[in-house]
Amino acid sequence: MFVKNAWYCAGWDHELSQGKTAVLSRRIAGESVVLYRKLDGAVVALEDRCPHRQAALSLGRKEGDSLRCMYHGMKFGPDGQCNEIPGQTTIPERACVRAFPVVEKDNWIWVWMGDAVKADPALICFSVGPGDAGWNIKTSQVHVKTNYRLEIANLMDLTHIAWVHDATFGGTREYELVRPRMTMRPRGIDSDIWLRNVPVTRFAQHLFPPDMRFDLHFDVQFSVPCNFVLHFKVYVAGTATEGPSDGQLVLDSYSCQAVTPCDADSVQYYYSWGASRATDSPGLSDLLKEAIDAAFLEDKLTLEAQHRNISEKPDFKTIDIVHDAGPGKMLWLLDKMLKEEAAAEKRAIPIAATV
Amino acid sequence: MFVKNAWYCAGWDHELSQGKTAVLSRRIAGESVVLYRKLDGAVVALEDRCPHRQAALSLGRKEGDSLRCMYHGMKFGPDGQCNEIPGQTTIPERACVRAFPVVEKDNWIWVWMGDAVKADPALICFSVGPGDAGWNIKTSQVHVKTNYRLEIANLMDLTHIAWVHDATFGGTREYELVRPRMTMRPRGIDSDIWLRNVPVTRFAQHLFPPDMRFDLHFDVQFSVPCNFVLHFKVYVAGTATEGPSDGQLVLDSYSCQAVTPCDADSVQYYYSWGASRATDSPGLSDLLKEAIDAAFLEDKLTLEAQHRNISEKPDFKTIDIVHDAGPGKMLWLLDKMLKEEAAAEKRAIPIAATV
Amino acid sequence: MFVKNAWYCAGWDHELSQGKTAVLSRRIAGESVVLYRKLDGAVVALEDRCPHRQAALSLGRKEGDSLRCMYHGMKFGPDGQCNEIPGQTTIPERACVRAFPVVEKDNWIWVWMGDAVKADPALICFSVGPGDAGWNIKTSQVHVKTNYRLEIANLMDLTHIAWVHDATFGGTREYELVRPRMTMRPRGIDSDIWLRNVPVTRFAQHLFPPDMRFDLHFDVQFSVPCNFVLHFKVYVAGTATEGPSDGQLVLDSYSCQAVTPCDADSVQYYYSWGASRATDSPGLSDLLKEAIDAAFLEDKLTLEAQHRNISEKPDFKTIDIVHDAGPGKMLWLLDKMLKEEAAAEKRAIPIAATV
Repeated sequence: MFVKNAWYCAGWDHELSQGKTAVLSRRIAGESVVLYRKLDGAVVALEDRCPHRQAALSLGRKEGDSLRCMYHGMKFGPDGQCNEIPGQTTIPERACVRAFPVVEKDNWIWVWMGDAVKADPALICFSVGPGDAGWNIKTSQVHVKTNYRLEIANLMDLTHIAWVHDATFGGTREYELVRPRMTMRPRGIDSDIWLRNVPVTRFAQHLFPPDMRFDLHFDVQFSVPCNFVLHFKVYVAGTATEGPSDGQLVLDSYSCQAVTPCDADSVQYYYSWGASRATDSPGLSDLLKEAIDAAFLEDKLTLEAQHRNISEKPDFKTIDIVHDAGPGKMLWLLDKMLKEEAAAEKRAIPIAATV
Repeated sequence: MFVKNAWYCAGWDHELSQGKTAVLSRRIAGESVVLYRKLDGAVVALEDRCPHRQAALSLGRKEGDSLRCMYHGMKFGPDGQCNEIPGQTTIPERACVRAFPVVEKDNWIWVWMGDAVKADPALICFSVGPGDAGWNIKTSQVHVKTNYRLEIANLMDLTHIAWVHDATFGGTREYELVRPRMTMRPRGIDSDIWLRNVPVTRFAQHLFPPDMRFDLHFDVQFSVPCNFVLHFKVYVAGTATEGPSDGQLVLDSYSCQAVTPCDADSVQYYYSWGASRATDSPGLSDLLKEAIDAAFLEDKLTLEAQHRNISEKPDFKTIDIVHDAGPGKMLWLLDKMLKEEAAAEKRAIPIAATV
Repeated sequence: MFVKNAWYCAGWDHELSQGKTAVLSRRIAGESVVLYRKLDGAVVALEDRCPHRQAALSLGRKEGDSLRCMYHGMKFGPDGQCNEIPGQTTIPERACVRAFPVVEKDNWIWVWMGDAVKADPALICFSVGPGDAGWNIKTSQVHVKTNYRLEIANLMDLTHIAWVHDATFGGTREYELVRPRMTMRPRGIDSDIWLRNVPVTRFAQHLFPPDMRFDLHFDVQFSVPCNFVLHFKVYVAGTATEGPSDGQLVLDSYSCQAVTPCDADSVQYYYSWGASRATDSPGLSDLLKEAIDAAFLEDKLTLEAQHRNISEKPDFKTIDIVHDAGPGKMLWLLDKMLKEEAAAEKRAIPIAATV
């Protein structure tokens, strides 16, 4: 179901304050995780489950760098090891909570859900955060009751912009002719997409003359489990060349999107959009945020209905179309990683049994 | 569970407009159905499921006589056949949606959920709609979280009027002596019921002298799956004869009720009531509608609690009483049809396998 | 899951009036029970399920000492035997509803869910009700979505007061040193607990000088399934001796708590607290009620989260701590009774089979 050896986004950094109540509960890839900050600000991620009687540690209390379970008072350090059991002096070795590797990067909190020794921060996807001085990035999030594979398929095929987002990002059927230039990476796919000589997108129609035309460039880095980083540029039509361009830039922007599966039936979708300082103007990045908020409710409606339909008839025979290539490649990569993890786990069992 | 070769009511005709958003989703006998009107007004009923990736077509857009899936833009004609796949020129033969036979009659939309070649409009039950010039029929509907077999049992035994509807339709225990004269038809049962010399029903007590007595005549046509058409007449007591009567008519009315199972645990109940023009008077049919709306909430409460109880103890041993005859006959007929359909399906499998 | 041969609390006596609508539905140990009072005030408890078609009798109507099912009018006496079937003269012997032994005691209604011949009122736990002239007892209740075994564990270990109830009953960590003196009874455990020289509990801090110290005495009678009766006394520190004491009493109070499992996933928690007339003063027992209402919401939050965690990972390996002794003893007693009942039922089956 879920790739374990991967970094999953657990939220925007501003969600986890140093306040008294800053103990957050998150559902990530089928596990309950509790997050808090140490005194130095570093984020700790533990399983949200006391080893004594499974009380929720997220109802607990931060004490220095430790987290105290507020059911019977057991206290755990940031490594998950119990360092106090009220009323007794000995602490059993097994009195520890699973600790997850965690990294803050680009204003996102990333948690590694698999084998801690494999948790390489270099595997965290590139992104541009709201804290980046060169960009005016606005952030948001939405909960969607769908399986994350449907989100992958959605994001790997931008032709849906013409239909799902007709009222927001749409306005042209040129998307249907899109054939992305895709490059496979070990844990993701890069896509390069040009749309030439198209009208302005619906949400910005009031900003330009009606007959003005644009070239759009989508530079997408997609990585497992479901992280989508889009460098999106808009040029005056006919002025942009492929590769580094000296065309007439109307908008240079980044939209960074991390879709974290909570469980098989829902995802938490953290996303952003914003213009470069050079192409920003007062109110512009707010308009982008308004547009993406509206558009993602369109996706939510579509993907929740699709998920209900699939849950009802999981064996329904479907047909494929030309635009399935992108989704197919990414889902193939995901399934390959899932199989490799399953095989590695199978090999690991006899070793564990001999310990 | 559900008889397939039957007409199911999908709603009142006025619910499906020619407006831009007039694409309705309905749950009928365990299937999701999308409804829309062609330019000539004729209703189209398709499975609410795109053959590409199971997106909901009810989120789609009407384009002329076609319906476009607004996920990837595939467009389907009223026969369910795909007539456009944006971005590609060939259309696979299997790119089609199941189309259901549909008929409008007496202001109800009827959908045939089984084998299309058997969809004979003559099998649609007789009813009197709000559009009938001779009657002032008012319409309504209610969702009930119960199994439709419980609705069948409810409607086939009018003695429950004395108890469930004590505060609305009730007012006399004469109902308990009712012995309907029943006539079996191939797909239903007719019931003929007389109540003689009874006081006025509760909801109309303020209209008549307290000691006035009436004769009531119920002429019921019940048909599968669960359609109940009642010709209800009230006479001054002692003036009516059975058969065509020249008695003193106080009320001549029709109540037409179509109970459509959504799935095993809920039904959508479309119903009406209204007087003949000859016996109507200003406000009278509104009173009938008020009364039936109130009464059907009484049924809803009763049948939802009963359904919860049965779901909890499906094997509970029950006892039978004298009034079970009507429900028993109708459920026997339903089960007979279910068995015949199951047997026919079993026979059909080897044939399909040889194709 | 549930001990059957036990008295379960079905509510406070004032909840069941003699009013027209005083027919209550309760969920007790996995069974639906309907309660009403006879003309003489005695409470009747029947299964909430008509033997005809499983309609809910709690939607029925009290008629004298009988309860009429308002679906088809069958009427049942307080022993559950049907005494009227409208429209027919014979009443089948099997037309009866299961009747449960019921006793009112200390303003609580108690229902016996097992074999009626074993229903000994002497097995009802001791308690002090709001009607007791010597005490000013205030009552309340709360619904908690948890398994009742977690409530047992919660109540058998008062050290949780220091943590769960830090903001209400808490204020000292002395609780962690508590070692109750426990006495096993056939159907319960008595606990005797002293806390010496502790500060005032949080909710009463405004009533005493900040440096004042107290001795607390908890005298607990716990009995199956999950009834907790606490005689709680507060003395000026250093003035109380164990056993009958002539110390300086600040508060002499009773809190009686009956936790009734509705089903595997929820309980209805009936509870009270109040001072003796001798130690009461205007507003004091109201303060106690305010405090216990607030505290039980803290428990609700904790136990609902714990129940969700356990439901998610029922096989999670937990560790034990020193304070598990009390919970362990009581759960052992419960499991012993469950096993004995299961064994007795197994022995009973061949006998039934030969009848």
